[in-house]
Amino acid sequence: MEKENNIQINAIGREVPINVNGKILIPYKGVKKHKPEGFKHGSRISTCADFPDDGNKLVVSLKEALIRSELQDGMTISTHHHFRNGDLIANEVFKIASELGIKNLIWFPSASFDCHAELIKYLKDGTIHHIEGSMNGELGRFVSSGKMKGVGVLRSHGGRYQAIQDGEVQIDIAIIAAPTADNFGNANGVSGSSACGLLGFALADSQYSNKVIVVTDNLIPFPCLPWQIQGNYVDYVVKVDKVGIPEKILSGTTQITKSPDRLFLAELTARFCDQAGIIKDGFSFQAGAGGTSLAVGYYFAKIMKDKGIKASFARGGSNKFLVDMLKNNLLEFILDGQTFDLDGVNSMKLNPNHVDTSPFTSYNYHGKGNFAQLLDVVILGATEVDVNFNGNVVTHSDGLLLHGLGGWQNCLFSKCTILPIPLFRDRIPVIKDHVTTICGPGELIDVIITERGIAINPLRLDLIEKIKGSGLPIKTIYQLKEEAERICGIPQKPIFADETVAIVKWVDGTVIDSIKRVIE
Amino acid sequence: MEKENNIQINAIGREVPINVNGKILIPYKGVKKHKPEGFKHGSRISTCADFPDDGNKLVVSLKEALIRSELQDGMTISTHHHFRNGDLIANEVFKIASELGIKNLIWFPSASFDCHAELIKYLKDGTIHHIEGSMNGELGRFVSSGKMKGVGVLRSHGGRYQAIQDGEVQIDIAIIAAPTADNFGNANGVSGSSACGLLGFALADSQYSNKVIVVTDNLIPFPCLPWQIQGNYVDYVVKVDKVGIPEKILSGTTQITKSPDRLFLAELTARFCDQAGIIKDGFSFQAGAGGTSLAVGYYFAKIMKDKGIKASFARGGSNKFLVDMLKNNLLEFILDGQTFDLDGVNSMKLNPNHVDTSPFTSYNYHGKGNFAQLLDVVILGATEVDVNFNGNVVTHSDGLLLHGLGGWQNCLFSKCTILPIPLFRDRIPVIKDHVTTICGPGELIDVIITERGIAINPLRLDLIEKIKGSGLPIKTIYQLKEEAERICGIPQKPIFADETVAIVKWVDGTVIDSIKRVIE
Repeated sequence: MEKENNIQINAIGREVPINVNGKILIPYKGVKKHKPEGFKHGSRISTCADFPDDGNKLVVSLKEALIRSELQDGMTISTHHHFRNGDLIANEVFKIASELGIKNLIWFPSASFDCHAELIKYLKDGTIHHIEGSMNGELGRFVSSGKMKGVGVLRSHGGRYQAIQDGEVQIDIAIIAAPTADNFGNANGVSGSSACGLLGFALADSQYSNKVIVVTDNLIPFPCLPWQIQGNYVDYVVKVDKVGIPEKILSGTTQITKSPDRLFLAELTARFCDQAGIIKDGFSFQAGAGGTSLAVGYYFAKIMKDKGIKASFARGGSNKFLVDMLKNNLLEFILDGQTFDLDGVNSMKLNPNHVDTSPFTSYNYHGKGNFAQLLDVVILGATEVDVNFNGNVVTHSDGLLLHGLGGWQNCLFSKCTILPIPLFRDRIPVIKDHVTTICGPGELIDVIITERGIAINPLRLDLIEKIKGSGLPIKTIYQLKEEAERICGIPQKPIFADETVAIVKWVDGTVIDSIKRVIE
Repeated sequence: MEKENNIQINAIGREVPINVNGKILIPYKGVKKHKPEGFKHGSRISTCADFPDDGNKLVVSLKEALIRSELQDGMTISTHHHFRNGDLIANEVFKIASELGIKNLIWFPSASFDCHAELIKYLKDGTIHHIEGSMNGELGRFVSSGKMKGVGVLRSHGGRYQAIQDGEVQIDIAIIAAPTADNFGNANGVSGSSACGLLGFALADSQYSNKVIVVTDNLIPFPCLPWQIQGNYVDYVVKVDKVGIPEKILSGTTQITKSPDRLFLAELTARFCDQAGIIKDGFSFQAGAGGTSLAVGYYFAKIMKDKGIKASFARGGSNKFLVDMLKNNLLEFILDGQTFDLDGVNSMKLNPNHVDTSPFTSYNYHGKGNFAQLLDVVILGATEVDVNFNGNVVTHSDGLLLHGLGGWQNCLFSKCTILPIPLFRDRIPVIKDHVTTICGPGELIDVIITERGIAINPLRLDLIEKIKGSGLPIKTIYQLKEEAERICGIPQKPIFADETVAIVKWVDGTVIDSIKRVIE
């Protein structure tokens, strides 16, 4: 059977397809095992002779810009999630494409949010063939039910940069929603009434896409400073009434938890870091987008104040907590990949030590190093982990694809990766024999912290040694799993069809796992 | 004869070789006529797996870094001129190469200065095969005398970016001297005791070279901010005692003239711009590195003060005069490609409206527009012009190659290009029937201003119209030429051999002229 021939077992024991959407894939080989060959993608050479002498690239509408960019069937179209759930442009792009009768587009967003559920109608009517990027919430359910024409491709933020840089994904038209721009195409996210912070997720798109359209609601005279996106990469500029709703940047995953259980988890995590000697003068950390992760930062600050020490840098997602640490001299720099609230936006605009970064600097695994690996500790979430410390962030235990990878995979390369997670959610244990989907290999996940105990990865003898005699509730991962199952029982496994609906790429472009259609 | 078969007449009537140093060349086709095909160069894909986990790329010496970069015979090695005549690194690189017995290197500097005359010994001993970049002073004389093994290739700053981007020049090892860096390779020119301003001339090298070495005398903890050069592109970092002498940035061409004749020229130029309606609120300008050009800025400021107006932006080379205009609110922004003195360095560090640019943003003709074309007026120098308004900046009337192109060609795309030049120098007329070397086509040169009259390019009917009745001493270029010849006589032409010693590239990579060996 062709379908069977298309499947290989990769180095972490998962069945993955080697041909998806007509493209040949490389199965995951292990951490640091895949060595890329060849050369970075080069986009088509442009010439100033083809652009206006006066530098004015303004066209009358997004539709006009898409037509001039020669929008055609089957093209790869990229948009970005700087406004998170307040994005107004992606839906508009596909509305125009649908009206123009364009079919089989590949949507290549840097992430999707609930607001993009509207695109399901364009997946249904054939305007969009498939999505390469996160497929969240309703979009994920749609994919999990097998209704998308093509196979979804999930990549981390760093993997997205890598895929563009290496030419795995060749973007035909990038549409960059920008809170401020000039008519030459220089653009930023720190100014204007729709200010969202930075535009780093669109950096690769600007550098490597064939055509680049900047859409703004705040057109200012040249030069737009800072030029987070450089006009020298931009083909067309469009002025619209509104590019995004910055108030909706603050979505579910970016509010600190109010749950006492999770606050306890966060505090336990901070205590662990303290005992392990991680919280010391000049250390660096990153707390992810989850509510618990955010709370960890709060406890870090408390410990640092008590000790009278200061962190060197924190990687954002920036939020009020990080910004306060910077203001209160607990932190020297925020190296920010994404503003998670308006405090973050304002701080990036005003504080020179709050610096915008991009997936290139922070996360790209096919660079000469990246920032994620320099961190002393990262705090991340997970939907599931397994007894081998493998982690899942994209599917739930019912098999449904509901989340994107974000920077999660990229952050695993830090010096210490900690997942503070509840032992069970809605009476479903979080620790499994096997995770539904492997998003990150266990060898990179160092510590699992639950409300009923802490499991340290046996590979981290150094951490185990440091924690000895600390009084912290250290257990094996098997003990934690059994404890959860004693309380909740062993849940039924979801029933999957053979059909692959999405694949999960590793940071190096290989396929670490696949996601099957859920039979509901 | 093979030599004769290798020569074609290009669109501006000059004999140019079509094969130089074993590479096929395209003869100049005219302004806006050459449309590039194909794709930008992609450098080899790297992986974090090959770089230190802790991001520390420090090696013990420049020699060690060159050896680890696998320095070999025939490689292309790049260095940069941010320290202008105070560069200490380029000579050191070739000293090491010579000691290692390496032969036939191509030196690809962003510019050369008197301090690089020391490299003549490595041109003689076979360490360096030829230079692609400016060949100034003694180096130029060496080339003009036919002693360099290969043929020199002259490119503008923008042409250098274009050549790297398009893959015409593939750099094997880029050595970037940086006044401040961290051990990850992030680097800048604004801090440290050797601060030189910006590192923009090394941008393309960092992006496209196979190996990148950052050499610094001020190693600071990560993160080095701003990261004008991004460590994610860097292979090795080297700490040395001293990377450059910033006091020597201020070289001959960056001091304002004290000559009353040239001050008169500068004032006349400013008056012309005023009469032509160029000096108005929100206008933009660039004054080149020459002493007269710098003085023009002084007179611009005077007129603006009188009118109570303010310029939008000036393109640097920045210097005390531009910085004072910024401070005195006569100027909104300096978009700076190169600091010409220490006032410029300090201002770039401290004033957020003094912004570093690069040949990519400012000058690259194979981009989607560039900044040079946006300028209302540029003031440039020239060694010669001819009756067709063609300009020369690289050779003197004695045929000797003595200067580089700098950003001169790139600036010609401004809305008005003015050359204020003395009618004669050392009793040699500056206006010729034919320039010794065509560096820029006359159709892009709008106005020649001499102490004895102003010639407006007949193509600029609009300017001729605006100046009518102004009382300015408007003459034809022929009148100016005759006047000079009446005073000085017609000088003897230099005698050239058949042999091509260097070629001059146009901004699009085509060959606009060639330079022959001078028979002395």
